[in-house]
Amino acid sequence: MSLSGPYDPGNIFAKILRGEAPCFKLYEDAFVLSFMDVFPQSKGHALVVPKAVAARTLLDLPPDHLGPLFAGVQIVARAVEKALRPDGIRLAQFNGAPAGQTVFHVHVHVIPIYEGRALVGHGAAGMANKDELAALAERIAAAV
Amino acid sequence: MSLSGPYDPGNIFAKILRGEAPCFKLYEDAFVLSFMDVFPQSKGHALVVPKAVAARTLLDLPPDHLGPLFAGVQIVARAVEKALRPDGIRLAQFNGAPAGQTVFHVHVHVIPIYEGRALVGHGAAGMANKDELAALAERIAAAV
Repeated sequence: MSLSGPYDPGNIFAKILRGEAPCFKLYEDAFVLSFMDVFPQSKGHALVVPKAVAARTLLDLPPDHLGPLFAGVQIVARAVEKALRPDGIRLAQFNGAPAGQTVFHVHVHVIPIYEGRALVGHGAAGMANKDELAALAERIAAAV
Repeated sequence: MSLSGPYDPGNIFAKILRGEAPCFKLYEDAFVLSFMDVFPQSKGHALVVPKAVAARTLLDLPPDHLGPLFAGVQIVARAVEKALRPDGIRLAQFNGAPAGQTVFHVHVHVIPIYEGRALVGHGAAGMANKDELAALAERIAAAV
């Protein structure tokens, strides 16, 4: 496995960005789209993806896209904190399959941490209930 | 525990930034300092910290500091990839003690991933050998 490789425009996040696949949207601006992870590791696990660039990893991203991407991450993390009052927030960003990357469009995980509740292994609990995701997304989006 | 709280200028990263504590430096510019994590989770585990701001967490950081911080992260991640050829790179950023934060000056972990080698629990192996850290730092710094 390698960190590098061609960008596949058929990846699920590219489909979401093109409106060809649905998502539970949290936030959008000119640079980023944020939506719920459908395989959440904790309640309120969100994703932030850059919109205007075909980059597999953070290493591939043009440097001038980093500020807008992480401005979006901060906006979403603050909204998650305000809406759900977790005890901590973990950001994670995986580059390459061996690092845990499963979708090859660069993305940042915003993972709320609740004391006494361990994180679920990615995908270990299957896809989340859609009604619960929709309700969480509504609460977080309202807190942006 | 809480995400928020006062900034303690006595934290170890603040001491490193003031030159009061040593580090194995990888990279420095006007906005960030990068150095080896002395409790590495894998070979080449690096840290990137913003220099000019007293912020506990990423949520506290003024938004205009996000671009320069992650530009530094990208520079260091690219150098780690070039120097050590890991199979993946994981970025992690912890906000609040329950999320895994142990030093309360905002920082980003750059963690090389090697196939077949599990990450060491943070601090589980104790402090790394200083000669090994110095040698790794030299290789990464040379690849910036």
